[in-house]
Amino acid sequence: MATELAAQSSSESRVSNSMEFVKRQVATLFELPAGLVLESGATIGPIQVAYETYGTLSARKDNVIYICHALTGDAHVSGRYTASDRKPGWWDGFVGPGKAIDTNKYFVICSNVLGGCQGTTGPGSLDPETGVPYGPDFPFITIRDIVCVHNALLDYLGIERTLAVIGGSLGGMQILEWAVSRPERVGSAVLLASGAKLKAQGIAFNAVGRRAIYADPLFRGGRYYREEEKPKFGLALARMIAHITYLSEQSIELKFGRKLQNGDQFEYNLRSETEFQVESYLHYQGRKFVDRFDANSYLTLTRAMDYFDLAERHGSLAEAFAKTQARFLVVAYNSDWLFPTSQSLEIVRALVEARRHVTFYELQSPYGHDAFLVDSELPKLERLVAPFLARRFQDGIFEGTSSAVK
Amino acid sequence: MATELAAQSSSESRVSNSMEFVKRQVATLFELPAGLVLESGATIGPIQVAYETYGTLSARKDNVIYICHALTGDAHVSGRYTASDRKPGWWDGFVGPGKAIDTNKYFVICSNVLGGCQGTTGPGSLDPETGVPYGPDFPFITIRDIVCVHNALLDYLGIERTLAVIGGSLGGMQILEWAVSRPERVGSAVLLASGAKLKAQGIAFNAVGRRAIYADPLFRGGRYYREEEKPKFGLALARMIAHITYLSEQSIELKFGRKLQNGDQFEYNLRSETEFQVESYLHYQGRKFVDRFDANSYLTLTRAMDYFDLAERHGSLAEAFAKTQARFLVVAYNSDWLFPTSQSLEIVRALVEARRHVTFYELQSPYGHDAFLVDSELPKLERLVAPFLARRFQDGIFEGTSSAVK
Repeated sequence: MATELAAQSSSESRVSNSMEFVKRQVATLFELPAGLVLESGATIGPIQVAYETYGTLSARKDNVIYICHALTGDAHVSGRYTASDRKPGWWDGFVGPGKAIDTNKYFVICSNVLGGCQGTTGPGSLDPETGVPYGPDFPFITIRDIVCVHNALLDYLGIERTLAVIGGSLGGMQILEWAVSRPERVGSAVLLASGAKLKAQGIAFNAVGRRAIYADPLFRGGRYYREEEKPKFGLALARMIAHITYLSEQSIELKFGRKLQNGDQFEYNLRSETEFQVESYLHYQGRKFVDRFDANSYLTLTRAMDYFDLAERHGSLAEAFAKTQARFLVVAYNSDWLFPTSQSLEIVRALVEARRHVTFYELQSPYGHDAFLVDSELPKLERLVAPFLARRFQDGIFEGTSSAVK
Repeated sequence: MATELAAQSSSESRVSNSMEFVKRQVATLFELPAGLVLESGATIGPIQVAYETYGTLSARKDNVIYICHALTGDAHVSGRYTASDRKPGWWDGFVGPGKAIDTNKYFVICSNVLGGCQGTTGPGSLDPETGVPYGPDFPFITIRDIVCVHNALLDYLGIERTLAVIGGSLGGMQILEWAVSRPERVGSAVLLASGAKLKAQGIAFNAVGRRAIYADPLFRGGRYYREEEKPKFGLALARMIAHITYLSEQSIELKFGRKLQNGDQFEYNLRSETEFQVESYLHYQGRKFVDRFDANSYLTLTRAMDYFDLAERHGSLAEAFAKTQARFLVVAYNSDWLFPTSQSLEIVRALVEARRHVTFYELQSPYGHDAFLVDSELPKLERLVAPFLARRFQDGIFEGTSSAVK
């Protein structure tokens, strides 16, 4: 492909990276008129993709790990942009020099998903046809569309095949889709706290979150970008609802229980919305979220999550997995009730049925669905992921798939 | 007490009841200036109490069963008001002639709770001081306050002691409070799918429901009664969120799974909020709810639920239960995740520690928290409750507590 060749010639400059500070990069892909034909049939283009890389691409290009972020994540996985950054990337405890995903050894890529709001084209981007933000006219996005853009970024970076793709939750869905739809690109797949579909309860929670946004009068049918006030109440409430599902019953109880925010006397005041600590915490989570996330992106990405159903598309999960070449590591958390262990086991059974290599582990953690993001829980995860990646790297990803490279 | 004596003289007319049709009755209690001094310190009065009775009070007044309804229930437990009523009362499958709570044998009372919106004084009632609905000026209500009104209704009806008090969920909290605070009135206590407190996750779900109401601009700080439009979006959303917690993961999955509302093709339309059947169902539940419930009552009663904590008030659950005289039947449902079995067991352990009589049973049901309201699940419950009541009735409720009556 012409694009790929062009990309390769300049890939060195794109993939070298100072480890002192990280830098957000942007690729422009799917230029019109071709654009990207989405699963819905609509065409979109061009697509800006915000991505970051960490570590150095090996000469053989056999050390690539692509991280797929979850619903509200972004490309900023690790490190800081400047010395004054208050916080590093969202998985800084797991990805970096000498860490579980060791950037002294691996070349790590993460891109903000299509439909997102952290630099990649999404509902808040300018529609080239109209010159104003897409808003509700942003086309309908699926997990397959998101993965198409990941693939295009690999092309752009001149990378043929990954050593591993890794992700949790919605990131895990991208990984499943990727391993099935473009098996030649996925050397191995690490799936955390995820599933091959959302079940009714998960769809229900997404639905009430979206309802909160739709019902906010400041949402204005999705055309709020040029307004002074954004639908922050609706978006914050959606986040508060979702946040409950990210925590285990045990962790929320241990952390907050029935503790009051101020002292130990009840206020007997119905106007107080934050009398219990758990309420104050949820309000804080909601407020924090609206500063960094866009309501239309939330609608877009939760719906993409709802639609994903690997078995339905391929006849069965085993039929889907029969198409894969990757070795799988599937990790569930015992206290995760949004994507319970049973959903990981469903994937594992189907992989076995399809005679694929799969390692499964249920980690014990009190932290529920979010455990893969909790710093104190990362050592457990590292003990599974680091050796898995090391073995895959040692075996070589071009083994048996492309003798020309060996 | 003068009130009680006065009530007794006219109790016959108040407690006779045709079994063909039921009738909502209203008692006016706590007349000013005395009124009812609430737990918050505020005074309210007069209080109208809407109640219904079924069956006939025995001459010895030893066959009284008081049902405490749950969060959004009302006094209309059984039967129909007129021949053209589309639906009977909310527990018609369980309460009536020849049913589990046999109104040929027992005299059943149920009243709408204080703070409610089905005939008993609540935020939508006229504030006698201002002549307009209380709205946000309605005083803060606790479970103890609700039970005070139940006791006053018993006084009004000339009833000294109940054979049993029965209730699920928030109704169960009333029963615990009653058995502890007025032990001489509670012959036995039947607790269904309930707990001695709400844990952090339950408080969190109530908080997001209330947030949905507060964030609705039509809520207008609670002063919406004279407006044409009520805060129906907020209240409906609160109900939708809560409804998810009333269903087990298994039941919502079995009933809806990933089934689409229309056909089997995705719409790829973000404007559709009801593409999946589970979404359509939740929207229906929300719509149906706003026709019969008041937003301020929802705020009031969920906060009463949040505040309830029997152990905190009495030092420990066992110390609380040391004050009781009732025999207890505690029933949990294995798929209830709002009030899981562990919360029932906490009560059972404390009752045992306090050397009280308690029978515990965990019923197997796929229906989650709402199982005690599901018709098809009632036979299982009947096999526990009917013999328990029969035995209590046979033993006699005045045994050992008031020799004068024997």
